Amino acid sequence: MRVLLHSGGPLGPAGRAALPVFLGERRRVAFVTAASLHDEAAYFARVSAMLQPPPPEGAGLELLHLRWNDRPLDVLARAEALFMGGGNTYALLKRLRESGLLPAIRERVQAGVPYLGASAGSNVAGPTILTTNDWNVVALDRFDALGLVAFNINPHYKEMDPAMAPYSETRDDRIREYHVVNANPVAGLEEGAWLTVEDGVVMAHGTARIKIFQPGQEPTWHQAGERLPL
Amino acid sequence: MRVLLHSGGPLGPAGRAALPVFLGERRRVAFVTAASLHDEAAYFARVSAMLQPPPPEGAGLELLHLRWNDRPLDVLARAEALFMGGGNTYALLKRLRESGLLPAIRERVQAGVPYLGASAGSNVAGPTILTTNDWNVVALDRFDALGLVAFNINPHYKEMDPAMAPYSETRDDRIREYHVVNANPVAGLEEGAWLTVEDGVVMAHGTARIKIFQPGQEPTWHQAGERLPL
Repeated sequence: MRVLLHSGGPLGPAGRAALPVFLGERRRVAFVTAASLHDEAAYFARVSAMLQPPPPEGAGLELLHLRWNDRPLDVLARAEALFMGGGNTYALLKRLRESGLLPAIRERVQAGVPYLGASAGSNVAGPTILTTNDWNVVALDRFDALGLVAFNINPHYKEMDPAMAPYSETRDDRIREYHVVNANPVAGLEEGAWLTVEDGVVMAHGTARIKIFQPGQEPTWHQAGERLPL
Repeated sequence: MRVLLHSGGPLGPAGRAALPVFLGERRRVAFVTAASLHDEAAYFARVSAMLQPPPPEGAGLELLHLRWNDRPLDVLARAEALFMGGGNTYALLKRLRESGLLPAIRERVQAGVPYLGASAGSNVAGPTILTTNDWNVVALDRFDALGLVAFNINPHYKEMDPAMAPYSETRDDRIREYHVVNANPVAGLEEGAWLTVEDGVVMAHGTARIKIFQPGQEPTWHQAGERLPL
């Protein structure tokens, strides 16, 4: 199984260059826009413009638009790899479940099709999505997700936010609350960081840091090139 | 029905002074700590130290600790008013439902017992809690709340956060997503603002602003002394 989970935000030159390396010979990638509660076609057009040009401007990918509500399983069958885009994590998981994509994607990825996720697309790779920053505006009532990895993701992670409302919870406060009730690790991905999982080995990459939270332990910081304790 | 919904954060001198005015002759207030996933006794002690001293230091209230898991209905029956404290909104709503407090509180408040809420305690006064900033760390699967008011609350509201991760959603983005799927208004309460509902009239109070979001309309800002279009 090959999984790449990105913090979200623009991939940047390092992120774009990493995609063809991660994908090997594969270039035909189904891009899933189901996390968007706005214009999915416009979202796909933006991502295509970024990833289809050959390197170094783009990543040289051939993108297929995988729409959750338009024969998604046919598009999935034609893809050599899958890229799950960002948006609202609750809307994404709801649509993946309603369309039958959830088990189909899990099966394809477990059979060796590479999985790339960004932001909400990284959240749904975990056992649950309960460490997303998003609001559950669709009133979703089931939170178990793809379970490709055993840890949860918090994308767009920021340790401290000097301008936040002073009595709001920090991310660390929220992850501590998560660990009052849940036991699996949480990986906080700063903007520009990503991790890969290959043959069970989890590695840090990118231009920013990754913070690992285990229940009852002090969190630990990690940088590109390090193997993560996950 | 008399309802006061505070942004959360410390009440400050203006907020403390407002409580006895809002409560009239009533002084025996049940304080609910069920939103805390940490030490509820310590939370109650902190709030008591703040609100029990006579004005101007405190608010001159006699606080009863209403514990969701220790004969809560008995304590509710003895109270002249109810104050729902902050913490994790999902944990709070779960405990209110499991303890039988949800219908009991609704009935008491509809019968005239004043309701005060702060942060998570303001969220649960709305039809649903889906505009909380909190994470659903308890995997709650029902989101309908007290429904004392017809609008939703976003506490600790901040319009723009210059230090936030640059590709994270703003509060306004999230409320716009909420309105893709839901139609009721949302009141964003800046730290230090509160609103009151008396005889159906919703008024702005405090030292900060309130922003009202209606689906398909530009949001509007309001200040203390204004009647809110809710």
